[in-house]
Amino acid sequence: MSKQNQWIVGVNAVASSIENDADNVREVLIDGGRKNARLTGIEEDARRKGIDVRRVTAQALDGVGGAVRHQGVAARYAAARTWNENELQGLVEAAEGRALVLVLDGVQDPHNLGACLRSAAAAGATAVVIPKDKSAPVNATVRKTSAGAADRLPVVVVTNLSRCLRDLQKLGVWIYGLAGEAGKPLYAIDLRGNIALVLGSEAEGLRRLTREHCDELVNIPMPGDIESLNVSVAAGVSLFEAVRQRQSQ
Amino acid sequence: MSKQNQWIVGVNAVASSIENDADNVREVLIDGGRKNARLTGIEEDARRKGIDVRRVTAQALDGVGGAVRHQGVAARYAAARTWNENELQGLVEAAEGRALVLVLDGVQDPHNLGACLRSAAAAGATAVVIPKDKSAPVNATVRKTSAGAADRLPVVVVTNLSRCLRDLQKLGVWIYGLAGEAGKPLYAIDLRGNIALVLGSEAEGLRRLTREHCDELVNIPMPGDIESLNVSVAAGVSLFEAVRQRQSQ
Repeated sequence: MSKQNQWIVGVNAVASSIENDADNVREVLIDGGRKNARLTGIEEDARRKGIDVRRVTAQALDGVGGAVRHQGVAARYAAARTWNENELQGLVEAAEGRALVLVLDGVQDPHNLGACLRSAAAAGATAVVIPKDKSAPVNATVRKTSAGAADRLPVVVVTNLSRCLRDLQKLGVWIYGLAGEAGKPLYAIDLRGNIALVLGSEAEGLRRLTREHCDELVNIPMPGDIESLNVSVAAGVSLFEAVRQRQSQ
Repeated sequence: MSKQNQWIVGVNAVASSIENDADNVREVLIDGGRKNARLTGIEEDARRKGIDVRRVTAQALDGVGGAVRHQGVAARYAAARTWNENELQGLVEAAEGRALVLVLDGVQDPHNLGACLRSAAAAGATAVVIPKDKSAPVNATVRKTSAGAADRLPVVVVTNLSRCLRDLQKLGVWIYGLAGEAGKPLYAIDLRGNIALVLGSEAEGLRRLTREHCDELVNIPMPGDIESLNVSVAAGVSLFEAVRQRQSQ
C-alpha cells in the first residue's frame, strides 16, 4: 500500500494513532507552552515507542491543523491512501465469507463520516465504500473525528456506486439497505455471512438507484417518538448487530 | 408540564416537530427569498395542521437562530421544560418495570448530546439524565441535532449524579455503566427490566464516583482496530440492544 504523509491533529486522534499504529507515525509535535496530563501521556507513549517528539509553538500547530482544533498536539502520519473499486474484490475475498462492508451513499457531514469510519473500524469491518462525488471527502476533520480509523481501515472511493453494488453481489455479498419504511427489522436478518450494509445521506436517505440495487431493505425498529437516527448512530447500531450475531455464532 | 416558548431552527428539526408534535408548534417562519422542495413541504405540512406560517427575511431568521444555521426555517415551539430528580421517580414508576433510562455523565459536545437525545427518543427511553454542572446545556444546537427529541423526551437535570443513581437503585433500577475495560459484554446482560445505561464523557469516560455507583460495568465488544466509539454511537448501540431484547421477549 503506497503511503503519503498526512497530519493528524487533536488529543484523541494522535493518542489513538500512537497506540494502534506507531509504525506509521513519523513524528509528534507538541505545543511547548501547554501542559496537561493527556499531552504528557502522549509524549511518554510516543518516546517509549521510539517516535520523535518535537516541542513547537502553538502557531506552528495552527499551521498544521488548518481549520481543525489541534488541542496542542499533531502527528505526521504515513497515511494509507484510499482504495479503488478494483481492490475491493481482494478485500472481500480475503474476508473468507465473513466480509462486513459499510456503504455510505452520500454522507455529507465530515463529523458523521468520521464517526462512521470509527464505528466501522471498531466493528472490524472489511472496508467502507463511499461514492466519489456525493460524499464528504476524507479530510482532516474526518480523520480527527474518526479517531485514527480513516488511516487504518480501507476506505474505497467509487465512481459508480450501482456498479460497485452489482460487483459485490457477484462476489456473493448480500446487500442490505437501511430504510426507515422497510418492513423487515434488522434483528430478523442473518448478518453472519458476506454482507454489505448500505446507509443513505442525512437528508435524503437512500437514493432510488441505490435502493434498487439492494437485495433487501431493512429497518431499525424504533418504538419511541422519533423515527430516524443520526446516520452515524444508525451505522453503529447495524454494524454492532452484525458483531453481536457473529460473536454468538 | 409547564411550557415556555423556544425557537427550533433548521429543516430537519422543524419538519420533525410539525410531524410529531404539531400541537406544540405555535408558528413557523420561512425565508421568503428561498425556495426549495423541503421548505415547500414544511409549509404545506404546517398549513395542513393549522399552524400559522409567516414569510420573513433571512435576517429575521438569523436573529432567531443565533449561531445555529436555520436553513431558511424556524418554528416557535412551546418547549417542554427540563425535569428535576424528584420527578424522575414518577417517570420510572409509570414505566411499570420496563424503565429505560440513559444517563450521560458529562457529555460536552452539543452535537453528541443532541444525537444521544435523538437516539433515546427513537428507542422509546423513559428519560435522559444529565448532570447540571458537567454537561453541555440543552441549547439550540442540542435541540436541532436532536431532531426535536429534546422537546419530547423528559430530560432530567440533576445536581448530584451519585445520589440520583442511588435513588434509581432504590426504585429497583439496575445501573449498567459502559466502560471499555469492563469484562462483561453488553450482549450477555439482560436489559429487559428496569435499567439505566450510564455513559461517560467523550474524553474521560465514566468518572470514578459514577463508576462506583454502577451495579455492573459492561463493554461493547469491539473486534476491530479501534477500541472506542463516539459517545452518541455507544449510546445508540446500547439503547438499541435493549430495544432488540425487549422486542424478542
